[in-house]
Amino acid sequence: MHTSRSVLSGGEAICSLATQSGGAIGVVRVSGKQAIEITDRVFRSAGKKELCNAEGNTLHYGEILDRKGKTIDDVLVSVFRAPHSYTGENSTEISCHGSAYILEQVVKALIDAGCRQAQPGEYTQRAYLNGKMDLSQAEAVADLIAASNRASHQVALSQLKGHFSSELSLLRDQLLKMTSLLELELDFSDHEELEFADRAELKALAEKIHERITVLTESFKAGKALKKGVPVAIVGKTNVGKSTLLNCLLHEEKAIVSNIHGTTRDVIEDTTEINRITFRFIDTAGIRHTDDHVEQLGIKRAYQKLDEAAIVLWVVDQEPTAEECADMLRLTAGKHLITIFNKIDCATSKPKSAVHDLRTINISAKLKQNIAELEAAIYEAADIPEINENSVIITSARHYEALTHADESILRVIEGLNFNLSGDLVSEDLRICLDQLADITGGQITPHEVLGNIFKHFCIGK
Amino acid sequence: MHTSRSVLSGGEAICSLATQSGGAIGVVRVSGKQAIEITDRVFRSAGKKELCNAEGNTLHYGEILDRKGKTIDDVLVSVFRAPHSYTGENSTEISCHGSAYILEQVVKALIDAGCRQAQPGEYTQRAYLNGKMDLSQAEAVADLIAASNRASHQVALSQLKGHFSSELSLLRDQLLKMTSLLELELDFSDHEELEFADRAELKALAEKIHERITVLTESFKAGKALKKGVPVAIVGKTNVGKSTLLNCLLHEEKAIVSNIHGTTRDVIEDTTEINRITFRFIDTAGIRHTDDHVEQLGIKRAYQKLDEAAIVLWVVDQEPTAEECADMLRLTAGKHLITIFNKIDCATSKPKSAVHDLRTINISAKLKQNIAELEAAIYEAADIPEINENSVIITSARHYEALTHADESILRVIEGLNFNLSGDLVSEDLRICLDQLADITGGQITPHEVLGNIFKHFCIGK
Repeated sequence: MHTSRSVLSGGEAICSLATQSGGAIGVVRVSGKQAIEITDRVFRSAGKKELCNAEGNTLHYGEILDRKGKTIDDVLVSVFRAPHSYTGENSTEISCHGSAYILEQVVKALIDAGCRQAQPGEYTQRAYLNGKMDLSQAEAVADLIAASNRASHQVALSQLKGHFSSELSLLRDQLLKMTSLLELELDFSDHEELEFADRAELKALAEKIHERITVLTESFKAGKALKKGVPVAIVGKTNVGKSTLLNCLLHEEKAIVSNIHGTTRDVIEDTTEINRITFRFIDTAGIRHTDDHVEQLGIKRAYQKLDEAAIVLWVVDQEPTAEECADMLRLTAGKHLITIFNKIDCATSKPKSAVHDLRTINISAKLKQNIAELEAAIYEAADIPEINENSVIITSARHYEALTHADESILRVIEGLNFNLSGDLVSEDLRICLDQLADITGGQITPHEVLGNIFKHFCIGK
Repeated sequence: MHTSRSVLSGGEAICSLATQSGGAIGVVRVSGKQAIEITDRVFRSAGKKELCNAEGNTLHYGEILDRKGKTIDDVLVSVFRAPHSYTGENSTEISCHGSAYILEQVVKALIDAGCRQAQPGEYTQRAYLNGKMDLSQAEAVADLIAASNRASHQVALSQLKGHFSSELSLLRDQLLKMTSLLELELDFSDHEELEFADRAELKALAEKIHERITVLTESFKAGKALKKGVPVAIVGKTNVGKSTLLNCLLHEEKAIVSNIHGTTRDVIEDTTEINRITFRFIDTAGIRHTDDHVEQLGIKRAYQKLDEAAIVLWVVDQEPTAEECADMLRLTAGKHLITIFNKIDCATSKPKSAVHDLRTINISAKLKQNIAELEAAIYEAADIPEINENSVIITSARHYEALTHADESILRVIEGLNFNLSGDLVSEDLRICLDQLADITGGQITPHEVLGNIFKHFCIGK
C-alpha cells in the first residue's frame, strides 16, 4: 500500500469551484503548470499587466470573458507561483460575484480555454504529491472542513499542523536507529573497533516505541467520538419516558411522544452538543410486557443497538429488581451505564440515591427537572481528554489500523529480543513497523533511507 | 429623496462572511480605515512582514489567532489599500477553510479585535458612498448575484458596468444644456451679443429626451420579466388537462394529476426556463359546471390570477362556442392569448388550425406531443428583446417610477414650450426631471452644477 510521491513541476491544469455558490462572492480555483496562462486567456486586466508577467502572491482586477469575448463578470484574480501555492504548482484563484450562474460560466470559460474539471480532493492530492504536506496532513484538511465544534476543530488543526506527523517522525527515527544498529551488528560483526548497542538498550527502545504507539491507538476512542459523536443509547421498558427524555436532550420535538405504549417503532437517531462535544443519541423501541418469551426477544432486539453505544442511559420509573439490574450490567459490560430514575414529579415516585448500587440520577423528563445534572454526567462518562491545538488524537480508522499493525510488529520485535533472535529476523519486524507508520504519512521507506541513517550516525570514512 | 454622498477616508471597520460556508474555502471580508491594522492583530504571518507594511493587492500566508492566541486556521489574507478596493476603503479578505465553525471563529476574533459585524449590503453601500459606483450600479450588484440565467445576468452586468448610468448621464447633459440655455435667457436677456437657442430647438431637445425616457420605461416590462420570470396563466374548464400540461412544461410531476374533476384546489406556482428565460406558471383551479350562477363565480375566481399574467394559455379539449371565445378575448385583453387544443391523441378530437380565429396550437399533454411548438409560441409571446452585455433594460421598480415621473416632467416642459411659458416656469419642470433622474444614480443636483454647466458652455470671461 505504498504511495509513491513524485514531485511534479505542475500537472495538467485543473479548475473547479472552491466555495459554495450563493454568497456575495464565490471563488474558482485553477492549478497546474499552465494555470496562469490559461487564466490569462479568459482574463482582461483592468490595468495593462498580463497575469503571465505577474509576480506571485499578487491580486489583479479585471474581467473574465467567455469564448465569444463577452464579459462574464468583474473579478479579482490571485496569482500564485510554484512552489508557493497550496498545491505547490502555479495556481490562480478567481474571486467573482457569488451567483451559481456566474461561477458555472467562469468554470466553463476555463474549460474552454484548456482546463479540466478537478476531481474532489485533487488540489490536496497534488499538494501531497508535490510534498506540500504528508498524507495524514492531507487527511486533516477534510477533517478541518468538516469540524463543527471546538474539539474536533482543534484535533484536525493539530494534525494539519503536522503534530501527528512529528510523533510518527519521532517513532520512525527511533525505529531507524534500531534498524541501523541491527544492520551494523550484521555487516560489521568482525570489526572489533565498532561498538554495538546491546540488546537491553534495543529492548528499552522498543518498549518505549510500543508505549507511545499504545497511547496513540488508545486515543482513537476519543478521536472517533470527536469526529462522529459519542454514541449514547437510551434503553428501558415501554412508557418510562425515553422519547420525552430524548426530546429534552435534543432540545426539540423530534420523537413523537404519546402515552400509548409502543409509540416509538423505529430507531430514531440524532445529535446534540454538550460542552461543545457532539453526542449521538440512539432511542430504541421500548420493551413490551406480553409474555416471558416475547420479552426476551424484545430485550434482544432493543439492545442490539447497545453494541455501538459507549454510554447507556437506562430509564426506569420504578425500582428494578436485582435480577433486572444484573441483566443490565451484563448487557452493558465495558460501557458507561447511567441509571435514570424518571417521573420524580409523580406522587408515587420517590427519588432514589442509588438503584441497587448503580449510579442513579433522578429526573423529570416531562418537567425538564435535573436535566443539567444528567448532561454533566453524560459528558463526564464520555471521558473526553482535554484537547488543545497541539493534541495528537487518532481520528482515522486507517491510521488506527496501521498503528495497530505497527504495534503488533513492535511487540514481535520485543519478543524476538527477549528470545535473543538474530538481528535479521528482528529487523524484518522493524521494517514492517516502519512500513506501517510510513503508510500513514504516505512516505516511502526505501533501503536507501536505512543506509542513509547508518551513514548519518556512524560516518564510515571517519 | 436625495441621498447625499460623502467621501469617507474609511469608516468604522466592519467584517462579515463573504461566501456561503461549507465549501473548500470561505472568505471573510474586512473594510474600514483600520481594517488592515485590525486584521494584523489577529494574524500571525508565516513570513516576517506585517500586514500593516504590506503593499496593496498582495497576498499573505499565515494564521488567524483567537483572543487567547490559539490558532483558528491557516489562511491567506488579501490586502487592499484605499482607494483601490471594492469599498474604496482599506480592506482585507481572509481566505480560510470553509467550515462554518472556522468562519464563525474568524469573524468572532475580528470582532474581539475591534471590528463591527457588517450590515447586509454595507460594503456596497460604502462603495457607493465612496464614489466607487453610483446607486444604480450598487443595485446591479444585488441583481447580478441573484441572476440565474444568461439574460438577467447580462442585464445586471450591463447596469453594473454603468451603461444605464451613461444613458442617464447623457439625458442629464441634455437637460442641463436646456436649463443653462433657459437660465441664460433669464439672466442675460438684455445682453444683445448673446445668442439664445430658440424655443423650437429647445422643444426638439425635449422631444428627444421624452423619446429616450419612453424607450427606457417601456423596457421595464421585459426587465421585470427577466428578473421575476414571465407570468403565464393556464386557464380552462376542469379536466381539459391543465395540470398535465403544467407538468409537461415544468418537466416534473409537481401538480397532482388525476382524472377526477377539480383535483387542483390550490393555485400552484412554479418556474421553468425556455431559451434561458424564466417563465412563472400559474395553474388555476378549473371551472366546474354546476349551474350558471356558480359557474360565473368560478370563472371570476379562477381568472383573478389573470391580472398578473402576461401570457394566457387557454386549454380546451373541444371547440369552444363563439361566446366563450368572445368572453376569453375580453378577459385577456392586452395579454398574449394562446389557445391550446389538448388531447389530440383522443380519437374524438380533431386538430384545429384555428379556433374561432384565435391562434391555436394542437397538443397532447399526456403524450407530450407538440410541446416544443408550444414552448416556442410561449417564448415568442414573451417578446423578450435581444439582450447583450450592453443592453439597457430597466429592472427596478424604483427606476421605473423615477423615469415615469421624469417623463411626466418633460411632457410638461414640452407643453410649456408649446404654450410659450416663461423660462423660469419651464426650468422648474426641467429641475424636477433632473432630480428624478439623479435619484436613480443617487447623485445630487445642486444649483452649482447648473451654474457650472453654464460656465462650461459659455465662458463668461471670453
